[in-house]
Amino acid sequence: MADTISFARGAPSLDIVDVDGLSAAATRAFTNDPGGATAYGTSVGYVPLRRWIAEQHGVDVANVLVTNGSMQADAFLFATLVSPGDAVVAEKPTYDRTLLNLRGLGADVRMVDLEQDGIDTAQLRELLGSGIDCKLAHVIPNFQNPAGYTLSLAKRRELLELAHEHGFTIFEDDPYRHIRFSGEDIPTMLEMDEHDTVVYASSFSKTVCPGIRVGYLVGPQALIAQIQKLATNTYISPNMVAQAIVYEFCVSGGIDASIATVKAALADRVAKLDAALQEHLPEARYTPPEGGYFMWVELPEGTDVDALFTAANERGVAFVKGTDFLLEGGQNTLRLAYSGVTADQIDEGIRRLADAYRAIAPAPVA
Amino acid sequence: MADTISFARGAPSLDIVDVDGLSAAATRAFTNDPGGATAYGTSVGYVPLRRWIAEQHGVDVANVLVTNGSMQADAFLFATLVSPGDAVVAEKPTYDRTLLNLRGLGADVRMVDLEQDGIDTAQLRELLGSGIDCKLAHVIPNFQNPAGYTLSLAKRRELLELAHEHGFTIFEDDPYRHIRFSGEDIPTMLEMDEHDTVVYASSFSKTVCPGIRVGYLVGPQALIAQIQKLATNTYISPNMVAQAIVYEFCVSGGIDASIATVKAALADRVAKLDAALQEHLPEARYTPPEGGYFMWVELPEGTDVDALFTAANERGVAFVKGTDFLLEGGQNTLRLAYSGVTADQIDEGIRRLADAYRAIAPAPVA
Repeated sequence: MADTISFARGAPSLDIVDVDGLSAAATRAFTNDPGGATAYGTSVGYVPLRRWIAEQHGVDVANVLVTNGSMQADAFLFATLVSPGDAVVAEKPTYDRTLLNLRGLGADVRMVDLEQDGIDTAQLRELLGSGIDCKLAHVIPNFQNPAGYTLSLAKRRELLELAHEHGFTIFEDDPYRHIRFSGEDIPTMLEMDEHDTVVYASSFSKTVCPGIRVGYLVGPQALIAQIQKLATNTYISPNMVAQAIVYEFCVSGGIDASIATVKAALADRVAKLDAALQEHLPEARYTPPEGGYFMWVELPEGTDVDALFTAANERGVAFVKGTDFLLEGGQNTLRLAYSGVTADQIDEGIRRLADAYRAIAPAPVA
Repeated sequence: MADTISFARGAPSLDIVDVDGLSAAATRAFTNDPGGATAYGTSVGYVPLRRWIAEQHGVDVANVLVTNGSMQADAFLFATLVSPGDAVVAEKPTYDRTLLNLRGLGADVRMVDLEQDGIDTAQLRELLGSGIDCKLAHVIPNFQNPAGYTLSLAKRRELLELAHEHGFTIFEDDPYRHIRFSGEDIPTMLEMDEHDTVVYASSFSKTVCPGIRVGYLVGPQALIAQIQKLATNTYISPNMVAQAIVYEFCVSGGIDASIATVKAALADRVAKLDAALQEHLPEARYTPPEGGYFMWVELPEGTDVDALFTAANERGVAFVKGTDFLLEGGQNTLRLAYSGVTADQIDEGIRRLADAYRAIAPAPVA
C-alpha cells in the first residue's frame, strides 16, 4: 500500500518551516546573549522575548508568562483556577486534550454548541441562567480546533458581558490568529476586556514550529504571579535556548516571512481540499476556513465514523474522528487537518477517503 | 558597594559553558535532522537523544523519558507515585525545592540525617522498623545538594536491600555524578538494582548548561509508560530543538570536553575556597567536596545564620542559609555554591563573609 496520507495531525509540514531562518536565529542567540541563553533564567521566560510579547499585546511585562508550549500554559492555568466539581464551559466540539485535562482535574465540563460564528451565546446564557457556578469558559476564537470556525465580533462582546455579569474567566486560547488567509482580522477579547476577565494563551508552534515548544499566557498580574510560582516549582524556568532562538527569529522579521509562507501554503491547501471534496466526496458538508489548520466535515446522517476510520486506514488515509472532540454524538463527523499534507497529496488523500466512504456508506435509496 | 559576589546559585559561571560548541551543535541539529528538531516529536523526548541516554546507562529505550529539565522529571515522578499522607524519606539537609514539592503534594516527609558518607542508614532502618509505610526515598548520591557529600558503596548496597525489604522506591537524583574531580567514581544504585526499586534522574544542566533545560528519568518500563501519559497531557512533547542540540553536542564529543572544563575549573575553585576559608574564617568546619557544585559549612554553635545572611548581604556576598534545606534546625549552617563564582572572586567573597561573621559573632570568651 502507498504511504499513508495523514489529515490527522495539527502540525505544519516541513516545507513551510523556515529551518534556515531558525538555524541562523540560533547562531545569533548564542552570539548576542550567551549568558541569557545558557543560564537558568527566570520562571517567567526569557526576558527579551517576554518583553517582545508584551509589546505585541500592548500590555505590561508583568501580564506575561512564557512557557514550554501553550499546553503547559493551559495546564498551569487549569491547575490554578479549576478545582474538582467546578463548572467549566467548553465549545462543542473542542480540542480533545483540553477536554481530557479538564476532566482529569474533576471539572464539571459543560459543552455549548459551536456555530459557524462561534459558541452559541444564547445557549450559554441559558446555561448560566440555570444556576451553574461557572468558573471558566474555554474558547478558541479563531479557526477553532477542530471546527475551523471563528467567533464573531458581536459574540466576543457578548461573551465579555456574560463573563463580567456571571463572574467567570474567559480562557481565550488563540494559537491560530495570525494564520488568517482571507477575511478580516477580529480584535481579541483580551484587547476588548475592561474587567480583567480574560486570560489569553498563544504559541509559536503555528508561526515558527512546534518543536521549539514556546507558548505564553497573558492575563491579570496577580494571576500571572500566582502561576509563576507554580512554574518555578515545576521546572525552575522554561527553555532559555529555545526562547532566545524565538526572540531572535521574531526581532529579525523572520516570523513575518514565516507567517506569510504558512498563510500562502495553507490557503492553497484549503482550495485544493475544497476542490477535491467537491469532485470525489460531494456528500461532504463543510465551510472552507478563512485560516488555521483544520476543516470540520459532516457526512450524511447515519454515517458510522468508526467504520469510516478503519476503511480509510486500510486505504492509506488518516483523519481524526469527530467523536474524539465531543463527550457524546458526532458519529457522522470528522476533522481534516490540511497543515501537514503537501498540496500534491490532497487530491489523492481525498480520493482514498471517498473510496472508504463508498465502501461503508449505506446504498442510496433507488 | 562592590558588586555582590554570589555563592548562592547552583549554576555554572558563563566562562565554563561551551557556548561556541553549543552554537555549532545547534547548526548541526537543524542541518542533520530538520524534521526531527522542528516537529512536535514525541512525549518521550527526541528519539536519538533518548537512544543515546539509554546506551549510556545500558538500558532499553523504553526505560527512558527525556524531559524539560530534571525538576520537571521529579514533578512527574512525584505526581505519579506520591499521594497525600504517603511517607517519603529525604536526606537532612536536602534540596529545598524537593522538600517544597513533596510537602506541596501532602507527603509525610521524614528526614534522615546525612553523614559524610551519605544518608544515615542505621537511622533509616530504625525509622522503617517503626512501622511507617514508606513510598519513596529521595537520595542525591553524588556531591549532594546542599552538603557536597557522596553516598558510599556500602550504603548504596544497604539502601537497595532496605528498599527491596520494605517495598519502597529509591529516587536516585544524580545530576552531579560526572562532575567528580578527585576520588573514585562509585556505581549508581540503578546499575546495582536487581528488583526494579530504583528510578534514576539526571540532567544536562551541570554538564552542558542549565538554559538548555534537558533532564531525564530512567526507571521500570511500566512506570515510565505511566509518566509518559502524564507528559503527553501536560505538554504534548518536550523541547525538540533543545534536545536535538544536546544530542549533537553529545555525539560530537563536545560533552566530554565540556565536562573536562567544568571539572578543572571547579577543582580549582574548591582549592581556592578551602584556602580562603582557612585564611579568613578558620572557625568554619567543612569537608572540601570531591566533585559537584556545593560545600556545606558549619559555624560555631550559637551562630545566627539569619543575622549572618543580612550582614553578608550588606557587605556584598550572598549564600543560602542551611535552614532553607531543613524542616528544622541548622541555624549555624550555610551552603556555599562555588560553581557560579570565578576563581578570582572567591578570596574576596570569603573575606567579606568573614567580615560579616565577625560583625555578628558573639565575642570570644577571654
